[in-house]
Amino acid sequence: MDGAETHDGGETLGEAGELAALARILPLLPQGDATVLGPGDDAAVVAAPDGRFVVTTDTMLEGADFRLAWSTWHDLGVKAVATNLIDVAAMGARPTSLVVAIAVSPATRVADLEDFARGLAAGVAAMAPGCGVVGGDLGSGPVATIAVTAFGDLEGREPVLRSGARPGDAVWVVGALGLAAEGLRALFAATESPERDERLEAQLAPVTPVAAGTALAELGASAMLDVSDGLALDASRIARASGVVIALESALVEAAAVGPGGEGAWLDAALHGGEDHALLVTLPEGVEPPETIGGHAVRRIGVVEPAGASGPSPSGPGVTLDGEPLAARGWDPYRA
Amino acid sequence: MDGAETHDGGETLGEAGELAALARILPLLPQGDATVLGPGDDAAVVAAPDGRFVVTTDTMLEGADFRLAWSTWHDLGVKAVATNLIDVAAMGARPTSLVVAIAVSPATRVADLEDFARGLAAGVAAMAPGCGVVGGDLGSGPVATIAVTAFGDLEGREPVLRSGARPGDAVWVVGALGLAAEGLRALFAATESPERDERLEAQLAPVTPVAAGTALAELGASAMLDVSDGLALDASRIARASGVVIALESALVEAAAVGPGGEGAWLDAALHGGEDHALLVTLPEGVEPPETIGGHAVRRIGVVEPAGASGPSPSGPGVTLDGEPLAARGWDPYRA
Repeated sequence: MDGAETHDGGETLGEAGELAALARILPLLPQGDATVLGPGDDAAVVAAPDGRFVVTTDTMLEGADFRLAWSTWHDLGVKAVATNLIDVAAMGARPTSLVVAIAVSPATRVADLEDFARGLAAGVAAMAPGCGVVGGDLGSGPVATIAVTAFGDLEGREPVLRSGARPGDAVWVVGALGLAAEGLRALFAATESPERDERLEAQLAPVTPVAAGTALAELGASAMLDVSDGLALDASRIARASGVVIALESALVEAAAVGPGGEGAWLDAALHGGEDHALLVTLPEGVEPPETIGGHAVRRIGVVEPAGASGPSPSGPGVTLDGEPLAARGWDPYRA
Repeated sequence: MDGAETHDGGETLGEAGELAALARILPLLPQGDATVLGPGDDAAVVAAPDGRFVVTTDTMLEGADFRLAWSTWHDLGVKAVATNLIDVAAMGARPTSLVVAIAVSPATRVADLEDFARGLAAGVAAMAPGCGVVGGDLGSGPVATIAVTAFGDLEGREPVLRSGARPGDAVWVVGALGLAAEGLRALFAATESPERDERLEAQLAPVTPVAAGTALAELGASAMLDVSDGLALDASRIARASGVVIALESALVEAAAVGPGGEGAWLDAALHGGEDHALLVTLPEGVEPPETIGGHAVRRIGVVEPAGASGPSPSGPGVTLDGEPLAARGWDPYRA
């Protein structure tokens, strides 16, 4: 028996210390094909073959963004990868690497952080094989904090912005809408641990359509973003950045929101729920994407129209549903 | 009068909402010469002229790493820049950009975040002109969390690692040792707000020798790191990575630790204090660096010796002070 074992079956960070904990965690992290220099020095070095890199950052906080009563540490690793790499993909880039800064209580078990590292590895294997964790930071804080910064390679292409949608383009979505919001609703409604169905997986350990980013860029995507705050709000971001109207059809949106439970009930979750991490993309009319990319359904949900007389009232850039103006209502972290 | 003004003279994030807050904060951030695409899309795009980029990440948490009773928001912006860019510099790279993810309570005033942004800009102007803030994340959490990831350009050079020190090299330090630890001690000891002297500045709003990184790399630095956990512990990191003994002279270390208050009293703070963010560097014997770089003193503090018979007991890589083994005692976030 190791004398450092504690009552609940695992050595804590406070008992192991930072160095011993890192020695157990680092070997579990994926190395990455673009890694020139990995963890262990003051900084890492990553290849950027076309002389540019894409970068995005996002923080998950215990309480505000996750609960340890609902999420396993493995879940949190998968979700950290899923939510950050989809932002890289939304630029039309291939994810190359990420850095992960995590702060936890000294009472956290090292085994929990090993599970987190395995979740990072599983997320990378599922969504972006060849991507690596090149560095990070392990700190101490009163609530668990996971800050991820992810990098991507545009492979010589121009980035796909929110501002490139043009009237006449078709509007497509890759991935399911509303599932994650329905999963969150189920977690709040449950009196005991609910079954891990597709909705809960989408909320707790999502697999996002990362590979679709480069595929859609190569098909000529004119605008693209990650639907993280609800379709209505995120579509309005493309509409305003591009100066157009995104005209959605409710029947098509409902089809993209159909889960295992049946049709039609999730329209509100699809329009105004959060954390879908689907890709919303505009493609020139006539471009037909494949029906699925990497296992994620690709569905047409509307068309881009010129802003002006035909736009929402008051006329201008915005989103319509079956021709009626749709409020850009969605997720605001300070007004939840 | 704006109806959103509150009792303490400023609109809060909860009152303003995320978008309105960002509209006030983003214009205050430095743009950066390497920025291909700045904030506003799913991700940013940064130039990496030699086909590689250096990346480092670090998180500052309220309570564990700072107190809002001691630090202004402007201080926190300066310190976030100072502590991250020095890690980029320690690789011999020129900082190009950073991303900043911040989570705060909805009761935080937008004016505080504006001060934080001004602190970021002031830090960049003082330490790395031309570096830009290319993106970030604004979230909500029970304690203030600042996660920074910083990037650098090696300008075609190889990175300067911890593992390159060779017997016969001289050991140098750029910047002051022990000042920040003395500043922290003064803050803990004070019964009311202490005067902002050099020690407090080093702790609360440090200006780190960022420009020395590329200068020392071009002089042929064989090993380099940022002294963040105390000289004894950080020197042992070079010693172990390089398989050598770092032989320090106490009189020279004391000289590097002399502050405005006089000589000699700070040896313990210099050896075992934290947050110096000086650069510890080994240079081939005969290379004479300038006396100051960017206003930071460059001082010789020892020599690199072979590990083995002459090393610390038990013989092997390590650190000695005046020939006696020096314990690698320093900062561990889980054992503070």
